[in-house]
Amino acid sequence: MFRRIYLDNSATTPVDSEVLEVMLPFFTEKFGNASSIHFFGQEARSAVDKSRHQVASAINSRPNEIVFTSGGTESNNLAIRGFCEANSKYGNHIITSQIEHPAVKNVCEDLEKRHGVEITYLPVYENGVVKVEDVASAIRPETFLISVMTANNEIGTIQPIAEIGQLVRRQRENGNKIWFHTDAVQSLGKMPVDVEEFNCDMLSLSSHKVYAPKGSGALFVRRGVRLQAQNLGGHQERERRGGTENVANIVAFGKACELASDWKVGVSADLKKIRDRFESLVGESIPDVSINGDREGRLSNISNISFRGVEGEAVLINLDLQGIAVSTGSACSSGSLEPSPIILALGQDETFARGSVRFSFGKQNSLEDVDYVMKHLPKAVENLRRLSGYSAADLK
Amino acid sequence: MFRRIYLDNSATTPVDSEVLEVMLPFFTEKFGNASSIHFFGQEARSAVDKSRHQVASAINSRPNEIVFTSGGTESNNLAIRGFCEANSKYGNHIITSQIEHPAVKNVCEDLEKRHGVEITYLPVYENGVVKVEDVASAIRPETFLISVMTANNEIGTIQPIAEIGQLVRRQRENGNKIWFHTDAVQSLGKMPVDVEEFNCDMLSLSSHKVYAPKGSGALFVRRGVRLQAQNLGGHQERERRGGTENVANIVAFGKACELASDWKVGVSADLKKIRDRFESLVGESIPDVSINGDREGRLSNISNISFRGVEGEAVLINLDLQGIAVSTGSACSSGSLEPSPIILALGQDETFARGSVRFSFGKQNSLEDVDYVMKHLPKAVENLRRLSGYSAADLK
Repeated sequence: MFRRIYLDNSATTPVDSEVLEVMLPFFTEKFGNASSIHFFGQEARSAVDKSRHQVASAINSRPNEIVFTSGGTESNNLAIRGFCEANSKYGNHIITSQIEHPAVKNVCEDLEKRHGVEITYLPVYENGVVKVEDVASAIRPETFLISVMTANNEIGTIQPIAEIGQLVRRQRENGNKIWFHTDAVQSLGKMPVDVEEFNCDMLSLSSHKVYAPKGSGALFVRRGVRLQAQNLGGHQERERRGGTENVANIVAFGKACELASDWKVGVSADLKKIRDRFESLVGESIPDVSINGDREGRLSNISNISFRGVEGEAVLINLDLQGIAVSTGSACSSGSLEPSPIILALGQDETFARGSVRFSFGKQNSLEDVDYVMKHLPKAVENLRRLSGYSAADLK
Repeated sequence: MFRRIYLDNSATTPVDSEVLEVMLPFFTEKFGNASSIHFFGQEARSAVDKSRHQVASAINSRPNEIVFTSGGTESNNLAIRGFCEANSKYGNHIITSQIEHPAVKNVCEDLEKRHGVEITYLPVYENGVVKVEDVASAIRPETFLISVMTANNEIGTIQPIAEIGQLVRRQRENGNKIWFHTDAVQSLGKMPVDVEEFNCDMLSLSSHKVYAPKGSGALFVRRGVRLQAQNLGGHQERERRGGTENVANIVAFGKACELASDWKVGVSADLKKIRDRFESLVGESIPDVSINGDREGRLSNISNISFRGVEGEAVLINLDLQGIAVSTGSACSSGSLEPSPIILALGQDETFARGSVRFSFGKQNSLEDVDYVMKHLPKAVENLRRLSGYSAADLK
């Protein structure tokens, strides 16, 4: 029987039925503009406020430290460009990593190219993890921002965020004006995300990675952090993000954050069971594979595997014909002909990087899905290797 | 019997049931990321493409000239800031009007303050309409952008967009590098919006003003116009707007554009009947009122009325207690203590500007709604005037 199995939950997730239920009334009945003074407006305003509490509570911040945005990309743009524009008197140097999402990386590159901001891209070594001592030794007198993602979107490696936060705290205690941003888009609901524990000043979130619809996100901005708004218009979001509030999506995002806090432990453990089972079966039945990123310090739902001798995209297309959806990297990078910069940053050669495939599990997946995939994956890899003339002799 | 009547359709509109129906599957079934290569992604991509055709068709553009955004505010920001950043070699002077939406006005003021761009704010006179000859005489050698809204959001006055477009065309034929943007957020579905007739280079749209959900919009960017993306990240929207496509909202927006094209004539005529009936009853039963903006050249659904001797906000609150939702100006300006800059631009004094109320009708409204409002409005104004000690003797 033909089934469709979605194993690309790091690209996006289906909307949870509970989430859909709470958002539906905001399309047709409670449709007011949250900036309007009348009943319809106040009804919307109160829903937005409730959601602000839910999001804040999921990351242990205050509600008035949450700025709703149109998604993770906007959150990262607002955080980094908005920070630089508002704080140029404090410095001109950003420290980030080689494995940030394009929404951080491309903003940094643009600031470098068009505005003369200097950027240090820290290495992540074979395990895909930034070293805190590298962060420390990259700090210069003109450093004013550190931006390191909480967990990577392609390989799932968890970065030492709390330790970097400690470092930043010590720097500040010594009078150095340095702030700390982390992109937690992939992390929420899969690991504890706590702005106090992280000691971060800004933190980016996205709704559609946690079973809420696309088109919403949030930026945590710690009280006192100065930020230049990027979307200018009305007074929304305490002057930090103009534009009519996307009430229905904000309501959905709030509910999803509430659910994500509930799952934190349970769902993560289930996902880990599924992911680990998958990886052990792959290891048993397919030769010459490498699981990318630190084996222990990874999100529980991501498995990024390089199949030597084949193109990741060929595996993707082959599995797609069997109804199985996976990816070769970030959806935001798809269409690019370059091998994944994330896999290259692990020190893998280009051929290996081109053979990488991301399997990302979600709460709708089961152990049966793994069995189904394993009916097809080994055969697909074997066929592709035969076609490409790959043999064990090519092994280094 | 207590009813709720929504007369704030310029602030936002309820989602049309047909629109809701087409968008719903994209939350839970067709939930793919439109940038993903697999089946789920392609399903989403094809829905986004269809919507791009629908939006393009509503404004007579080519589909690949449509950039989806998170709403009208983002569209205006992208148009104006994105244009200035990409075309600084062609000039340093923008011509706009005194009655633009904050999403245009505040971007212009920011460019003036932080980037030294010079801005001319054209007057609109008593009728609330920009004069084409004023545009012509404001043009300087360093002028590179003209941004005048298609129709105003508070008083509904329709601007001479096609004439300004002609002027820009002649300038370009003479070798002057001048481009033309118009904010058509309030106009779509209420008057013909045609980028060929307007001869504009950029045109902003918003979904939630046309019975689609909040959180989507589009910017028409004529082929060949250079624009610096503001949201950097993935390759989405032909490198002009990074971030995962908000598929469900985009689908809804496309459908709403299709419906808006259908209504163009019919609904507008119905709205005009309702609006005109309302204004004639107000004129008969409430003394000392003024209908703001040109009586003929207005959108058919907006009635902006100043009640001498009362605060607009007091009228709003009074009507709200009776279940009637109206506004005192742009929802994006609410919370501001200043009188509406739009009404001031008409040459009205401050007291009159403070007494202005916007009634904006939508396709869900009926003549009965007008009768209901007229049961309460004259009484409300009379009571408020009595409380404020206003009498006919105060008349000039």
